[in-house]
Amino acid sequence: MNIELTVIPEGGVTSPAGFKAGGIHAGFRKNPGRLDMALLEADELCPAAGVFTQNVFCAAPVTVSRAHLDNQGYGYARALVVNSGIANAATGSVGLENARKMAQIVADTVQCATEDVLVASTGVIGTHLPLEPFETGVPELHARLGKNGHDAACAIMTTDTVSKEAAVSFVSTDADFEGVTFTVGGMSKGSGMIMPNMATMIACITTDAPVSPAQLHVALATAANASFNKVTVDGDTSTNDTCVAFASGKAAPSAGFFKEGSVALAEFTTALNAVCQNLARQMARDGEGATKLVTVNVKGAATDEEADLAARTVANSPLVKTAIAGHDANWGRIAGALGRSGAHFEQEGVDIDIMGMPVLRSGLPVGFDEDEALRRFEQDEIIIDCNLGAGKAETTVWTCDFTHEYISINGDYRS
Amino acid sequence: MNIELTVIPEGGVTSPAGFKAGGIHAGFRKNPGRLDMALLEADELCPAAGVFTQNVFCAAPVTVSRAHLDNQGYGYARALVVNSGIANAATGSVGLENARKMAQIVADTVQCATEDVLVASTGVIGTHLPLEPFETGVPELHARLGKNGHDAACAIMTTDTVSKEAAVSFVSTDADFEGVTFTVGGMSKGSGMIMPNMATMIACITTDAPVSPAQLHVALATAANASFNKVTVDGDTSTNDTCVAFASGKAAPSAGFFKEGSVALAEFTTALNAVCQNLARQMARDGEGATKLVTVNVKGAATDEEADLAARTVANSPLVKTAIAGHDANWGRIAGALGRSGAHFEQEGVDIDIMGMPVLRSGLPVGFDEDEALRRFEQDEIIIDCNLGAGKAETTVWTCDFTHEYISINGDYRS
Repeated sequence: MNIELTVIPEGGVTSPAGFKAGGIHAGFRKNPGRLDMALLEADELCPAAGVFTQNVFCAAPVTVSRAHLDNQGYGYARALVVNSGIANAATGSVGLENARKMAQIVADTVQCATEDVLVASTGVIGTHLPLEPFETGVPELHARLGKNGHDAACAIMTTDTVSKEAAVSFVSTDADFEGVTFTVGGMSKGSGMIMPNMATMIACITTDAPVSPAQLHVALATAANASFNKVTVDGDTSTNDTCVAFASGKAAPSAGFFKEGSVALAEFTTALNAVCQNLARQMARDGEGATKLVTVNVKGAATDEEADLAARTVANSPLVKTAIAGHDANWGRIAGALGRSGAHFEQEGVDIDIMGMPVLRSGLPVGFDEDEALRRFEQDEIIIDCNLGAGKAETTVWTCDFTHEYISINGDYRS
Repeated sequence: MNIELTVIPEGGVTSPAGFKAGGIHAGFRKNPGRLDMALLEADELCPAAGVFTQNVFCAAPVTVSRAHLDNQGYGYARALVVNSGIANAATGSVGLENARKMAQIVADTVQCATEDVLVASTGVIGTHLPLEPFETGVPELHARLGKNGHDAACAIMTTDTVSKEAAVSFVSTDADFEGVTFTVGGMSKGSGMIMPNMATMIACITTDAPVSPAQLHVALATAANASFNKVTVDGDTSTNDTCVAFASGKAAPSAGFFKEGSVALAEFTTALNAVCQNLARQMARDGEGATKLVTVNVKGAATDEEADLAARTVANSPLVKTAIAGHDANWGRIAGALGRSGAHFEQEGVDIDIMGMPVLRSGLPVGFDEDEALRRFEQDEIIIDCNLGAGKAETTVWTCDFTHEYISINGDYRS
């Protein structure tokens, strides 16, 4: 199916119908000029889903949001509140209680059940979350909530240098929704996976398409696996990683949910994947100290798992990432990473291309023009293509180069 | 069994009886002042064993040395020749032929069978190995071979800043070898796992103890797993990693091999482990750009595999390594790494100590004196202790900190 997506300029979580959002300086951060709390509110209770960090040291808000989605990853929700500055991770039972109160304060303001509020936090680990900023900030922000997705996207940033937002729309060709325009929007924050005591990736997706909680969860988990889960800045997955989605259904209010296996559901899934991949690429490009987005394509793997293993090993190799920072078409390090990845293949079957230049064929080096290589490295996206010649599985992983700046950001004493 | 080891000052591969070694500038490198070929020769054919890289892109000399040890990792050998400057990796059938000729040139000079010569190369990947330097250098070096283990250790260096050598001796308490002094010596080279197109770890162990080829292989594989395989500079295992051992038996010429399960064999194993761990720690300390040796101890893991997984994930985390370079007692990053390692445990059961200071207890942060922490970070070995509270398995992994210098060494264009 070939569906046409329309990118919405400066689109974000408030592009789809049925959502209001905004950001405020509530007081989690010292700098009064810095937004540090985001609130997203659906006009009514609507289908919601979430995928969360697998880290054993998961933060309190992750535990609470999981519970509010009935510990099955989907259900119904009305609002999402996110604070930056304090992660509420490694805070024990007190942290859990604070995360619940954080949800309750929003519930009291929005007039919904506490279980209908999802929460997320990002910032310093091991510090308790103050509640005063919520008590004063939530009512104030709620009062002036509007189509301010950008403020919300800015309020969840930590070491991100730019906010990450995206939105696309499509006109359905499904017989039941002929000509109806549906929109999917999103925001995320990323940067290093764990900053000096900080914790990390948060994404929120909204849509006005009528998808059921279960449909939304399946689509979100699938999209996250092909986007956010394919991004690696330094291999460190954080304690707070959270990705949630809300579906207002406002674009087709009275139609009921998309039918299973329908064209409309497939169209929605495609749009959701596009938004998630767009956000994922923005996250990789803005990795700590990054100067380049690095796209690692692996094909010819024996299995999907081995394709992922091979691509991830290349993308996480400090030697590959430093070589790219150094504009070095260093196929030796890429071959070395593929070779140790655990993927099964014969070195005689391996081809590697860097920026479209063949550098390895059948496991043997191919001479290339170093000057031409340097020219191609001027691009701000570096593309590495590896063919293992061992099967039909393929995947793409996104990362960034590894610079002095990364060491400075992460090596400088946190105080 | 409590055996007493005596460290031999400036000891190395020629400390045990029955071995000669040396190094020479044969011409693999441009700089005429730089030794680039090492030769180790046993007085007679003797038991030998080897463990090699698991990298699919294994280099030609690895394939040839494996074959010369009957592809079972042990047998008999007379000599080892190592060149630095060119790795003879990713060189196909021509590379294999050159590696065989490299062995043959040594065999002709030493007067033994080509199959009795082990070979290793380290240096640039994808470049063919010239044979002239062997044709001229091997006879010249052979003629003046002596107790020059240090020259051999220097000749195998690449980006190593210092040569790595160690030797210990012990007086046996075994009834069959009462009072006999046995010696185990070794040399290695390490640094980054794959340099700008270079490939890496090589170790050679010698002993005058009478151990059989099979005994030597078991002892070497065990020792390597608890030493060289526990070192990680950047997680990149190279295409040329080679560790070989020779046992002359000269300390007890007519006694026959140690008996299986004998005290003497246990004593030898202990001494071998000590030498390998000493070399491994030297390698970690001299990691590219390293300013500190980092020792990661994990205990309380459910299984040995999970202990290794947890320790390795902490040791490979760029965030942990940059924090150490920044003298930052950043337990949050250590907890995050443990949590994503795949090891099974409850965060409530985790304790973490940095340089003997409790920083996390039962999954919750413990206040510590930042000034005292900074003082302890002045040490040149940083020790991290993690207790997962999930079992009885434990392990130790060695790494180094992650500095701007690492980025410079690996990021600067190779030409």
